[in-house]
Amino acid sequence: MFELPTINALKQPSNPAWVEQAIANLDIILLDHSQCERKAAGVALNLIFRYPSNAKMVRELTKIAREELEHFELVNQWLEHRNIAMRPLAPPPYGAGLKAQIRPKEPDRFLDSLLISGLIEARSHERLGLLATHCPEPELAKFYRSLMASEARHYGVYWVMADTYFDRDISMRRLDELAVVESGLLATLHPEPRIHS
Amino acid sequence: MFELPTINALKQPSNPAWVEQAIANLDIILLDHSQCERKAAGVALNLIFRYPSNAKMVRELTKIAREELEHFELVNQWLEHRNIAMRPLAPPPYGAGLKAQIRPKEPDRFLDSLLISGLIEARSHERLGLLATHCPEPELAKFYRSLMASEARHYGVYWVMADTYFDRDISMRRLDELAVVESGLLATLHPEPRIHS
Repeated sequence: MFELPTINALKQPSNPAWVEQAIANLDIILLDHSQCERKAAGVALNLIFRYPSNAKMVRELTKIAREELEHFELVNQWLEHRNIAMRPLAPPPYGAGLKAQIRPKEPDRFLDSLLISGLIEARSHERLGLLATHCPEPELAKFYRSLMASEARHYGVYWVMADTYFDRDISMRRLDELAVVESGLLATLHPEPRIHS
Repeated sequence: MFELPTINALKQPSNPAWVEQAIANLDIILLDHSQCERKAAGVALNLIFRYPSNAKMVRELTKIAREELEHFELVNQWLEHRNIAMRPLAPPPYGAGLKAQIRPKEPDRFLDSLLISGLIEARSHERLGLLATHCPEPELAKFYRSLMASEARHYGVYWVMADTYFDRDISMRRLDELAVVESGLLATLHPEPRIHS
């Protein structure tokens, strides 16, 4: 049907320093992860709200939003289990940096929103994979592994949505540009441990 | 554990003219219903976002948000089945009118948000019940009936949350005030057919 540019979506792999920082701060990473899942559900809902006439997108993103909420629940159970009180964490510059790339005029705004959501899912997939590999607690490592497949699938859905509503060439070129920014935003490790630090 | 002020939550039953208007415009009502479910999920997510430290609330509202998204999907299947294209509908004045009642200072803002969400669920429960009773299409009537229980349950959850975080007397008194406004907003039938017209 189409070739998923999965492997090439991310321009740069994560800095190994990120793994070290994350493993040394697993409680904060769990807390931030909870917020990421909640935000991901919110992003999907906002796209549904902004583009309600795109029936296929509404269908796909509703499924994504439901899954993100399911993961939000699961991560929150881990927080409870580890006696970590829910509290707001200042976000790293990653999300705002990507959001700043969204061109304000339609249909650019729509395309950029889909591609950026896809890139965030692709990066989350990579980082949960790193946590699954390096986390010293087997149960938690297993949990991270169990979430990886959905992140990859979500990336695929956002890409297919871009491919559904836009010319392949235009989507590919823009994905390429945004992916450069995405990797650039992570080139310097943010001092606070976060999923996207 | 506590007495649910279910029966008395709504100060006035719906105007019979609403039933007539709704039954004569079932397609628009379905379209608006879809938007109500999406909005209800968004409201629950926003409360989670605003008050992340209230673990019990986060747990309960995550469940509500998931259910609302499930209903959103179900209503959208009805739209598809009836060949009704998804499109934005101008909302009736009901939501904005209720939102205007939210006092800006915390913790009033939190209490008002919970109580207003509860009142909207209580009214939705009443109106889906009216649709279930009066809808001339048996399958659709059955569908409305199937959703009623959750609306009642959601009302209950919002009330329990108010009762968890606030003094019973304060919550009851404020619920009473807001319920008067809620019924007032529906006293004159909005000319556009809506779930909350």
